[in-house]
Amino acid sequence: MTAGQDGINEAARTLPNFRSDNVAPVRPEILQAIAEANRGPAAAYGDDDYSKLLNRRFSTLFETEVTVFPVSTGTAANALSLASCARPYGAVYCHEEAHIHTAEGGATEAFTGGAKLLPMPGPHFRIEPSNLREALASAGWGVRNRAQPDAISITQASEYGTIYPLAEIAEIGAIAHDKNLSLHMDGARFANALARLGCSPADMTWRAGVDILSFGATKNGAMSADAIVVFDQDLVESLSYRLRRAGQTASKMRYASAQLLAYVEDRLYLRLAAKANAVAARLGAGLAALPDVRLVAPVEANLVFLNLPGQAINRLAAIGLHFARRGHDVIRFVARFDSTEQEADELIALVRSAVTRS
Amino acid sequence: MTAGQDGINEAARTLPNFRSDNVAPVRPEILQAIAEANRGPAAAYGDDDYSKLLNRRFSTLFETEVTVFPVSTGTAANALSLASCARPYGAVYCHEEAHIHTAEGGATEAFTGGAKLLPMPGPHFRIEPSNLREALASAGWGVRNRAQPDAISITQASEYGTIYPLAEIAEIGAIAHDKNLSLHMDGARFANALARLGCSPADMTWRAGVDILSFGATKNGAMSADAIVVFDQDLVESLSYRLRRAGQTASKMRYASAQLLAYVEDRLYLRLAAKANAVAARLGAGLAALPDVRLVAPVEANLVFLNLPGQAINRLAAIGLHFARRGHDVIRFVARFDSTEQEADELIALVRSAVTRS
Amino acid sequence: MTAGQDGINEAARTLPNFRSDNVAPVRPEILQAIAEANRGPAAAYGDDDYSKLLNRRFSTLFETEVTVFPVSTGTAANALSLASCARPYGAVYCHEEAHIHTAEGGATEAFTGGAKLLPMPGPHFRIEPSNLREALASAGWGVRNRAQPDAISITQASEYGTIYPLAEIAEIGAIAHDKNLSLHMDGARFANALARLGCSPADMTWRAGVDILSFGATKNGAMSADAIVVFDQDLVESLSYRLRRAGQTASKMRYASAQLLAYVEDRLYLRLAAKANAVAARLGAGLAALPDVRLVAPVEANLVFLNLPGQAINRLAAIGLHFARRGHDVIRFVARFDSTEQEADELIALVRSAVTRS
Amino acid sequence: MTAGQDGINEAARTLPNFRSDNVAPVRPEILQAIAEANRGPAAAYGDDDYSKLLNRRFSTLFETEVTVFPVSTGTAANALSLASCARPYGAVYCHEEAHIHTAEGGATEAFTGGAKLLPMPGPHFRIEPSNLREALASAGWGVRNRAQPDAISITQASEYGTIYPLAEIAEIGAIAHDKNLSLHMDGARFANALARLGCSPADMTWRAGVDILSFGATKNGAMSADAIVVFDQDLVESLSYRLRRAGQTASKMRYASAQLLAYVEDRLYLRLAAKANAVAARLGAGLAALPDVRLVAPVEANLVFLNLPGQAINRLAAIGLHFARRGHDVIRFVARFDSTEQEADELIALVRSAVTRS
Repeated sequence: MTAGQDGINEAARTLPNFRSDNVAPVRPEILQAIAEANRGPAAAYGDDDYSKLLNRRFSTLFETEVTVFPVSTGTAANALSLASCARPYGAVYCHEEAHIHTAEGGATEAFTGGAKLLPMPGPHFRIEPSNLREALASAGWGVRNRAQPDAISITQASEYGTIYPLAEIAEIGAIAHDKNLSLHMDGARFANALARLGCSPADMTWRAGVDILSFGATKNGAMSADAIVVFDQDLVESLSYRLRRAGQTASKMRYASAQLLAYVEDRLYLRLAAKANAVAARLGAGLAALPDVRLVAPVEANLVFLNLPGQAINRLAAIGLHFARRGHDVIRFVARFDSTEQEADELIALVRSAVTRS
Repeated sequence: MTAGQDGINEAARTLPNFRSDNVAPVRPEILQAIAEANRGPAAAYGDDDYSKLLNRRFSTLFETEVTVFPVSTGTAANALSLASCARPYGAVYCHEEAHIHTAEGGATEAFTGGAKLLPMPGPHFRIEPSNLREALASAGWGVRNRAQPDAISITQASEYGTIYPLAEIAEIGAIAHDKNLSLHMDGARFANALARLGCSPADMTWRAGVDILSFGATKNGAMSADAIVVFDQDLVESLSYRLRRAGQTASKMRYASAQLLAYVEDRLYLRLAAKANAVAARLGAGLAALPDVRLVAPVEANLVFLNLPGQAINRLAAIGLHFARRGHDVIRFVARFDSTEQEADELIALVRSAVTRS
Repeated sequence: MTAGQDGINEAARTLPNFRSDNVAPVRPEILQAIAEANRGPAAAYGDDDYSKLLNRRFSTLFETEVTVFPVSTGTAANALSLASCARPYGAVYCHEEAHIHTAEGGATEAFTGGAKLLPMPGPHFRIEPSNLREALASAGWGVRNRAQPDAISITQASEYGTIYPLAEIAEIGAIAHDKNLSLHMDGARFANALARLGCSPADMTWRAGVDILSFGATKNGAMSADAIVVFDQDLVESLSYRLRRAGQTASKMRYASAQLLAYVEDRLYLRLAAKANAVAARLGAGLAALPDVRLVAPVEANLVFLNLPGQAINRLAAIGLHFARRGHDVIRFVARFDSTEQEADELIALVRSAVTRS
Repeated sequence: MTAGQDGINEAARTLPNFRSDNVAPVRPEILQAIAEANRGPAAAYGDDDYSKLLNRRFSTLFETEVTVFPVSTGTAANALSLASCARPYGAVYCHEEAHIHTAEGGATEAFTGGAKLLPMPGPHFRIEPSNLREALASAGWGVRNRAQPDAISITQASEYGTIYPLAEIAEIGAIAHDKNLSLHMDGARFANALARLGCSPADMTWRAGVDILSFGATKNGAMSADAIVVFDQDLVESLSYRLRRAGQTASKMRYASAQLLAYVEDRLYLRLAAKANAVAARLGAGLAALPDVRLVAPVEANLVFLNLPGQAINRLAAIGLHFARRGHDVIRFVARFDSTEQEADELIALVRSAVTRS
């Protein structure tokens, strides 16, 4: 089949596309790794050499023994991570804008068997340690009609592209462990946060108290491979069964593992994320300088949230520009590893035109 | 990374590998389709051109309007299909050797919210219509403490490689619809059955009463793409939400859709399955002729189940041959699209040697 | 056994007990009804004469055909009612102080298979129709990663003893039905609300759009019998199965049905509730007149929530007074059908003493 | 209300009623205990004196420290007991005729979050230790796509009225603990078994390896009170939360506790069960002596299962006799604590008449 015969990919795409990181193609290095893995038969369900190597490589990368489970989506990574931490009568604390709460269709409730997500507000779209302490203080520990605290979930980078400083993660980690809770990190944009902070993967995770990590790769250049990285080895056994019955244990796992290996090889993931972050920073600076435009959150990763007049938003929509809306006067742009500075400049020009015509 | 540097794929693989169809690599046509789909940005979550084309192509293939949902595993396909048919207090009738009952870790129970699988015996590892009628007659319809019949699941080809004749599917379909039940087909080896029967996809499914199909592709040459094909459009809406919250809605769905499109293009799937079936037939014939060896089931698809002396099984294991065991004196060999007649002959020789030394 | 031999009921109970309506004994009329029902064998699981009569009597009481299911607790009534309305990927809108959200241990999440409760603020602890409209407007209808609106749950009287006027229920009912949602009423204190409003049971429920009602009786004089009253007969079948598998279908149902019949006989339930309301009103007026004491909500049913200095609260606790705390400076008193004006006056005197010693 | 005014209990009941133990009324001692508990306010949710005493009394009764949770039905007792033992990806082994498998509407699947019941055949409707060993040997321990053994459930007396000898329970208990599984006993007819064996409650439970017990009382004279008796204290905490969110923690628990206390006071429960057993024995002997009548199982408790010609069954149904059917030619009679020898003789005469007219 030639896709073109069916009109695929033929539409002119003249406008810069900052719709989401999910619209990105796959990086050539990763496609190449898939092709290399495609040699003869290999053991299924993770007993292949690539999958075995995955645990070793990631253990090296994270400077501690980790267990890595490739999964097909970030939703699966989050919900199954939390299902391994939270009892059916448990509670998971998260920010009120957390993806697990607002945009995964109840996956965590489903896989935990009905645990409660307890969302809390917090400046810059991050959980604030003092809010968390207060919430935990009034959690009703041991009260049989109250959902019992089991886990905390933070998103790094957050859903609005802000980033927890290491000290803040560590503070949340200390709170978690003081209360015997698990700390989960939704790392859908893990690489973007890491590239920004310039620290080691270990520093941003287990050294700061993270027990289990949703390690995102698909948004940043992989094809169909996110992963759960488990630091707390007590969570591994339960998780391994839960993954299988969730239909998340790929039979031909070598192809997912090969993607993840290539993704971290030679710091590819950091180079890609840094590129996306840089384009976002340029975009954020250019847009913030426009009249009637306000950044909703500081641009620390690859996401730019703008507050601008509804009329301007309508104009942007009318010309066919792709973007996500958040309420009446906020829109989101996402820079990808394959976004360019030129596209950023084009977008700034489009927004300028939309707001100045008001 | 060069995998070889880590010792991957370097072990000598001198013995023919008939361990499972899951050990197969990916067919070049399918890898090529993935590479072709890798051009620039594309809409996420199924709004891309490949995924839209998928519904049209499969509707043509099945000669009726179908809705296709790519999923990452056959377990997800089965369990979510059944979750769209069966209420939490419902029951699903299946063969006692059905994969959904014996080898998916309770996935159907999990995704349905606790529906019961009601396994039944049946010759040649197929549900027998008369058994089914009897089971349904004593199902306790309307009795509040009995799980209520909601669906029937058949596996085509069956877990033992036997195949339902069209008339038998139609009989089961008639029973199902007479009782207002859904008929699900686990088509993990759909192509192998279709190649054997030589009928159309429509004849083997909706024309015989099938409402929803787990369409397997991964075992037969795809990389990470099975699918749910829905004939009963009333099941679509519920299923679409269930897939998303199950973490089975891939963001970069184009790559799964491209695999599925290539899989059926120019009848590739049938050619691959026919090849596997032919090798299995040769293997079955050769093995059945050996002393002390008995086929457990007729070889109708790509699976060969042998009854042979435990001592012979031990000898085969001792030389490092890959195979699956079923109880004390039964083993399974699986032919793949990339298996060869020469490998079959080598395997026959190995088994001959193992049994004749007894 | 004489309980006294084990020290039961022997402790001096000199302080008035306004801890909760759950501490109340059973009304003699209801005990008497149980004794009367205790004659010879009777069909089990609701096929007895009392249970059959229950549907007729309640249909008369509510002036429409209803189906009544006795259950053993209010939590079961709420969670199973909502499970009959909400899909696993559905959402239930409720007030942020709703008992289903704060004090039932995740029962609704459990029985629905993981639906989301979406709590919202609202003055006087009631859902405000305008808030509800706004929440529904941004609900993401049809968006696959968002929980889909299925039901609204209001509590009448509310958890803080406030009462929805009929017009407000009707407005919420109209919103619900306009959006094809079910309206559930948590009537743990149904009688208290009804006694206050002085309207008919029909006016406060189905005529205002209520589809299913948790009908509380235990707090107001019954022993172990709450009920689900279903107005929307489409919900009945699913509910009947869900109740049985939840272990909520009593085998000797006649004893629960007899309680419920006696509870409404000769308007007993309204007389009991009016008594509790009157004591609470006296209590509220007396307490509100004290220095440093503020009512948190108007006293419209049998609940009194007070804001008073933490030091005064500590004094009340120190003398052994029973009450529930809500945060640092709020406490709750509950008047029961068996509370007396004298006890209310004693309590007022105790609180006066506690606050004036500050 | 006078029930008679509504025609309740007025129909002539001239035929002996051996339909089920659930049709029985409540014993006067138990009604009396409820009335005695009805004095003034008492703490809710199990903090009352009766509920506290319950743990002490049952600990004495069972000669070890136990925790007792009153529940409203046997289904709740069974399903929640097993939910405290079995993980969502776990398996529970039971007899193929176990009530939890055939007659609780999937309650165990629901409350465990989708664990599998693995039914097995066994003579006299009891699990046979050798079958159990074999099943466990092929359970696929550690295999990720197989439900993992977590618990064994036996019914004492069994659903067909047969009784496990102590040595057999102990053998099953040893198997369970050898494999680190929990042993649950469904004691819906616990008293009947105990009365028959003449041993102590301790001997029939924890001394033989039972970890958790569904303690039935409702069938044998209580009104609405069964209980979970926990021997393995590690199961208590999880269970206490699960009960509350299942709506099984009664607010006015004193009335359930009072029933259970009276039930065991002065060995009432054993006296009642012995009576029922004696009537059943008389019935069994009388019926077995009839032509064309065969006992399906030895009469060891209060249940009598008969095989007799379908025509005779039809005649019995035609005269309005109450009984349960099991398939085409088997019926069940149940003797209760309030059944009489005269009724047994009447029933024998009726069956004689039905079979001899053939």
